[in-house]
Amino acid sequence: MKQSQLFTKTQKDALKDEVSVNAQLLIRAGFIYKEMAGVYAILPLGLKVINKIANIVRDEMDKTGGVEMQSTALQRQEVWKKTDRWSDDMVDNWFKTKLKNGTELSLAFTHEEPMANMMTNFISSYKDLPIYAYDIRTVFRNEARAKSGIMRGKEFFWKALYSFSKDEAQHNEYYEKAKVAYKNVFDRVGLGEKTFMTFASGGSFSKYSHEFQTISEAGEDIIYIDEEKGIAVNKEVYTDEVLEDLGLNKNTLIEKKAIEVGNIFSLGHKFSEPFNLKYKNEKGESQLVFMGCYGIGISRLMGTIVEEHHDDKGIIWPEAVAPFRIHLLSLNQNEKAQEIYDALTIAGMEVLFDDRDANAGVKFADADLMGMPYQLVVSEKNTRDSQVEIKNRKSGVVEYVSLESSEIVKYFQNK
Amino acid sequence: MKQSQLFTKTQKDALKDEVSVNAQLLIRAGFIYKEMAGVYAILPLGLKVINKIANIVRDEMDKTGGVEMQSTALQRQEVWKKTDRWSDDMVDNWFKTKLKNGTELSLAFTHEEPMANMMTNFISSYKDLPIYAYDIRTVFRNEARAKSGIMRGKEFFWKALYSFSKDEAQHNEYYEKAKVAYKNVFDRVGLGEKTFMTFASGGSFSKYSHEFQTISEAGEDIIYIDEEKGIAVNKEVYTDEVLEDLGLNKNTLIEKKAIEVGNIFSLGHKFSEPFNLKYKNEKGESQLVFMGCYGIGISRLMGTIVEEHHDDKGIIWPEAVAPFRIHLLSLNQNEKAQEIYDALTIAGMEVLFDDRDANAGVKFADADLMGMPYQLVVSEKNTRDSQVEIKNRKSGVVEYVSLESSEIVKYFQNK
Repeated sequence: MKQSQLFTKTQKDALKDEVSVNAQLLIRAGFIYKEMAGVYAILPLGLKVINKIANIVRDEMDKTGGVEMQSTALQRQEVWKKTDRWSDDMVDNWFKTKLKNGTELSLAFTHEEPMANMMTNFISSYKDLPIYAYDIRTVFRNEARAKSGIMRGKEFFWKALYSFSKDEAQHNEYYEKAKVAYKNVFDRVGLGEKTFMTFASGGSFSKYSHEFQTISEAGEDIIYIDEEKGIAVNKEVYTDEVLEDLGLNKNTLIEKKAIEVGNIFSLGHKFSEPFNLKYKNEKGESQLVFMGCYGIGISRLMGTIVEEHHDDKGIIWPEAVAPFRIHLLSLNQNEKAQEIYDALTIAGMEVLFDDRDANAGVKFADADLMGMPYQLVVSEKNTRDSQVEIKNRKSGVVEYVSLESSEIVKYFQNK
Repeated sequence: MKQSQLFTKTQKDALKDEVSVNAQLLIRAGFIYKEMAGVYAILPLGLKVINKIANIVRDEMDKTGGVEMQSTALQRQEVWKKTDRWSDDMVDNWFKTKLKNGTELSLAFTHEEPMANMMTNFISSYKDLPIYAYDIRTVFRNEARAKSGIMRGKEFFWKALYSFSKDEAQHNEYYEKAKVAYKNVFDRVGLGEKTFMTFASGGSFSKYSHEFQTISEAGEDIIYIDEEKGIAVNKEVYTDEVLEDLGLNKNTLIEKKAIEVGNIFSLGHKFSEPFNLKYKNEKGESQLVFMGCYGIGISRLMGTIVEEHHDDKGIIWPEAVAPFRIHLLSLNQNEKAQEIYDALTIAGMEVLFDDRDANAGVKFADADLMGMPYQLVVSEKNTRDSQVEIKNRKSGVVEYVSLESSEIVKYFQNK
């Protein structure tokens, strides 16, 4: 893509109305636009990141047997009253709205109730189970204070998968698969080393739920990590009893701030009971469906990646989620750069071509701020020396490659 | 994909609470689920259709120079008050909601105002123009009566592109490109022959706007078509004066019901003026940006396709938007069918494999209802005769091909 086609602009100066690093950098680099506190439009570069993260999540969910659908944003109160979660006293961050006839509706903040209700249409026999349905969509939460940039928005993208199983055994089998899928997601988006499966409070049907927490100074949670075992405990269940239960020793645990990037819950019959979501088993007996839910904040992940992958010059995108792999900077060499751009794109590589009429200083600063993994510089001096300069944004290492397009393509094919 | 993995089920009987053909068939075939009147969840098969339509739209928008972004669902009243469109008296199908502090917000039904407002951050010079930004997202309209299934929903998918040009000349150039792109979209989704560019009422900056209307008995609009010229006039501007202006003769026009599947508008300075959206021209003079907007209802298109491509047995998807190209029906021949399924999917073909434990009658009826372009039948008799049966859903023509997987792959590669 040519940068001249991109309508966004970078901003040099820090923003006064944003305290979080992620919003500062994403706004300044032109990835998001602040519509109001906690509500951000996703600009073209940001959408590419969101789509890459979403596609990684999709891929891992599909591998577990997940099937994608799209639930609704508008929800009926009758459905939520069945579990006594309609009232604002029960759920404090609802957005509500009204039909023309005055009937109150809600804006989706989650979908356990509508999903359990819908599945009564599709589940009748043990042969229908298990079912793993997921959704990647915008949800809404009426947050009173939104200070963490895109990590805690009033409207944000997330993935939610709901599992419907015959019994606890069938459920547990999937629950373990989900743990692996989640680990894969966080590895692939570049947060693997800093992300720990964390024991958190469960519900009526399981002792614990599991959160996936990424260590970060920007985190709102406190966790206690056993580095050797690679697991952690959320402060909310950090008691002697729990530590003993999990075989953890207080003296080897390290306290850290962390961002909750995902969570998985065993729901048991909590939702199938009120909706009478039942199936006939092999013996013809009516049984309640055993449910689970599995969330990942897609836009929160984008924010977390920025929090953990940046320096004082800007963002440093991990390759798997970078909007473009290569940032091609033409310093008054648009003709030569165009040739290289064509060769790279024909070879299937993702290139952002800075073809703008701007000076070298601006282009270098913008490239560092926007954070593509490689900066490929075509300057007059380089052209004279029959070479291009390739800078790795993360390591800062600079290499020189022959000006021949085919050589440049080969360089990136072998990286 | 294996049908056993799909959690949806078909419904044999007509639904009492749906009057539209599109909702009847899409619900019965398991493509959508009715959450409430005018609000439908998109089930896995439906999501595949929506994504195919959206990708065709994306492709055509990108070719015109469009850049995709994602605007917000929550909108600020200050922005809408600038054009005096905040009040429910001005816009009668608003959904409104409230922040915790009582501030009223709106749910997006369109984005002219927020887009014009946002662009004041990105447009300052003639060098920044033109800009073509588009959005494929859910929007909300508080429809009092929703009787047309997914063709007039309270929440639905649409694409909206907003163009920002220096002046009317630069705008007109794009407007003509957009007409071609729209024609391509409707051709590609299988509605080309029935869709007419239709003159409708303009605004302060242009005599006419242009609608794209698909002839259909399910339509809510009345248009007058000149078949020879391939254009039409909406009833709202069907006057002697307009006909004369367009060089049309009343006697050659045919009255038809039609569905508005897209529209394009010249907005001129209508929105740039209240937002003071200006740029400096080549001479350093401050000028208002000239805007246009271009909408396509993605979910409405899905509904329209069903209205125009079905028979009494069910849906007949055009190949470009079918969730799967091939419906592989195993009649107690799962082993052989699995082999064929593997060969076809390795060859990159989209196959829905009916591996369910159900009788032939059910499988044939479901396949006709669901409407994939080809039904590939593996039965005991066929296997004995070393052949498979391939039925074209649209023409009904049946062909027999050797049971060899490679021969079956070849058959579909050459189709």
